[in-house]
Amino acid sequence: MGQQPITFLRQVVALCTYPDLLDNPSFPKDAKRRARRILESCSGQSLGSYSASQGVNCIREDVAKFIEKRDEGVPAHPDNIYLTTGASDGISSILKILVSGEGQSRTGVMIPIPQYPLYSAAISELDAIQVNYYLDEENCWALDVNELRRAFYRAKEYCSPKVLCIINPGNPTGQVQSKHCIEEVIHFALEEGLFLLADEVYQDNIYSKSCQFYSFKKVLYDMGPEYFNNVELASFHSTSKGYMGECGYRGGYMEVVNLHPDITAQLVKLLSVRLCPPVSGQAAMDVVVNPPQPGEESYEQFIREKDAILCNLAEKAELTEELFNQVPGIKCNPLQGAMYAFPRIFIPDKAIEKAKEHQMAPDMYYCMCLLEETGICVVPGSGFGQKEGTHHFRMTILPPVEKLKILLQKVKDFHMRFLEDYA
Amino acid sequence: MGQQPITFLRQVVALCTYPDLLDNPSFPKDAKRRARRILESCSGQSLGSYSASQGVNCIREDVAKFIEKRDEGVPAHPDNIYLTTGASDGISSILKILVSGEGQSRTGVMIPIPQYPLYSAAISELDAIQVNYYLDEENCWALDVNELRRAFYRAKEYCSPKVLCIINPGNPTGQVQSKHCIEEVIHFALEEGLFLLADEVYQDNIYSKSCQFYSFKKVLYDMGPEYFNNVELASFHSTSKGYMGECGYRGGYMEVVNLHPDITAQLVKLLSVRLCPPVSGQAAMDVVVNPPQPGEESYEQFIREKDAILCNLAEKAELTEELFNQVPGIKCNPLQGAMYAFPRIFIPDKAIEKAKEHQMAPDMYYCMCLLEETGICVVPGSGFGQKEGTHHFRMTILPPVEKLKILLQKVKDFHMRFLEDYA
Repeated sequence: MGQQPITFLRQVVALCTYPDLLDNPSFPKDAKRRARRILESCSGQSLGSYSASQGVNCIREDVAKFIEKRDEGVPAHPDNIYLTTGASDGISSILKILVSGEGQSRTGVMIPIPQYPLYSAAISELDAIQVNYYLDEENCWALDVNELRRAFYRAKEYCSPKVLCIINPGNPTGQVQSKHCIEEVIHFALEEGLFLLADEVYQDNIYSKSCQFYSFKKVLYDMGPEYFNNVELASFHSTSKGYMGECGYRGGYMEVVNLHPDITAQLVKLLSVRLCPPVSGQAAMDVVVNPPQPGEESYEQFIREKDAILCNLAEKAELTEELFNQVPGIKCNPLQGAMYAFPRIFIPDKAIEKAKEHQMAPDMYYCMCLLEETGICVVPGSGFGQKEGTHHFRMTILPPVEKLKILLQKVKDFHMRFLEDYA
Repeated sequence: MGQQPITFLRQVVALCTYPDLLDNPSFPKDAKRRARRILESCSGQSLGSYSASQGVNCIREDVAKFIEKRDEGVPAHPDNIYLTTGASDGISSILKILVSGEGQSRTGVMIPIPQYPLYSAAISELDAIQVNYYLDEENCWALDVNELRRAFYRAKEYCSPKVLCIINPGNPTGQVQSKHCIEEVIHFALEEGLFLLADEVYQDNIYSKSCQFYSFKKVLYDMGPEYFNNVELASFHSTSKGYMGECGYRGGYMEVVNLHPDITAQLVKLLSVRLCPPVSGQAAMDVVVNPPQPGEESYEQFIREKDAILCNLAEKAELTEELFNQVPGIKCNPLQGAMYAFPRIFIPDKAIEKAKEHQMAPDMYYCMCLLEETGICVVPGSGFGQKEGTHHFRMTILPPVEKLKILLQKVKDFHMRFLEDYA
């Protein structure tokens, strides 16, 4: 989509890859310092060696420091950090450890609807029970704890709900949770003994001026020892989103809080079968958590590149919301964070009938028509889940502004035609 | 262990990581050509983009060409190549697809004993049935098809054996299978409708002059259409072993033969949940399958480095076998390939009693004593499986020759003392 990599990140990873470059004067000293430090913590000073299954030591230390700083001093320990092959790998691994049982005691995993399909796929792979809680579209896709409670008690009738997944900022909704909402969720998790999985990969992608990212870990800590010593939490981050967008490196980490020692032992065993996460992805993760600091040679360029990407995304988030809401029959919540619009679309009855003829979900039919008529590919809401009778699609806001404007105009024109055709 | 990376591989990956280096005159032209080609096949010309879940197109093409060349013209198609996160990921994924059933119809997966523990772990994770067939230690750890048959019919009494795993060259045995042996295995697989998994990650690590690597694919093809059109096979390779030793990159591929289209669809779906293998590992894999050719600038250095590593490993394989066999109470088969010695050790009865007191397997006790007395860490045979009443350990031959000599002398001295202490 034209977004360029952060120069400093690629410099550090290139230096680690081919250490002869450490003598090359065109690479900045701060990048070399980081590369040397990473290599010293790698077996044989090489990205080509297996690392410990949990990840390279110094990188886990840097992750812990990053979290402490982000969370204004809440303690984080490298022993609780697991480097992963992207966030997906961490989420699948911890779910595998948490899921068990048969019949009535099969593990229920609570996930938001709409959700990111990794969750439904992992739950299905593990033969666990997917327990849906619906986000409140009328209220900017907020998480309502009463809906959580409804879903939980309903699920208890046929399974054993033990895990509660939260995506914040939301994918595909773009919603950013308030501190108050997170407190309510944590309180509920303590009350019902739920293990929290906080998918926080979009933590750098906050666009609405009125929103702020709060990590579940930080809020948990602030609620006091009764909560912080008891609620079990795993949170996830990656190199794939944010301002980095380095998804190909498959870098990520998971932090665990209050994981029982027996569970930890099983987790370590499970992870060791897969040997280790890609070490170049671990190096990329290190740069994300340990970027250039004020006074360092690369600081200004780094900040310039980072801010440009994030400002650009914020502009596109606003633009997308604004343009979608000008279209009759499209309603789009504010894109507070993440990278997607998930507008609600009105699909006329005649189109719904047509979709049935094609044995397609109505929004799938809509998206196929859009693709065929305009070449624009968006994902139908039915792939993420949505309230019965509502229709949506997910679209990224990643294209460059000028392209995005054209694209939005084309979607608008298509939608108007679609409404007419099926009026 | 002191083994240096292949310069050309790291140059190509560094160029892909930080394309500014494409203007740097100190990088060879052939490395730049390969980097440009890989980048052109990556979305946004970047290692940081997700690739297709099956892997970068041009790399799959290169893998197919490599296989065709290796197998003297046996056709290979990029559509049948799946790039993976190391070989382990490929093996786990295909096993996940193949395993099913409950009770009597639970899938049995046949694995060699001794085995590489990835297999037992994956089988256990998937709740499949591990069906052991024993390699013949008296016959250089050869695979005996009668033993396969015995294990298969025994297993049919309580499960549904459907998958047959072969590790060639063997880990931990170092055995290299003869063409005749492979033919017998394939014939058996056709007879019994078994899906073959051929773990061929050590295909470049052949040391005995009398041995040659035959791929299962090639032998299958040579057996004629009745076999080549019917036997289902998945084979695995990686960047981690061979002369490359780039395990940290988590690069690998899987080639499938005769995979049913319905199974292919499920496999693609499963792989897509994890998004894609690390793209830098894919780039490393590309260099392995598409190394410098005669006439190219980097060819001589590449061959020099490659040969030095492989000759050195061959020397250490011979040295290890020779020295172990000088020790009374240690018996070591020839290290025909791979990277390990798996000597049989005699453990006196008194030591076995002592081990029982410590609630340890006898060879575990032996290995712990070795570790405590000498600082040398080897893995007990019980971790890989062995015939009841026999004891072994696995040791890599990776340390530099001079260190390896000292190490072997220390093991020898320890073993003599151990025999005396427990006489």
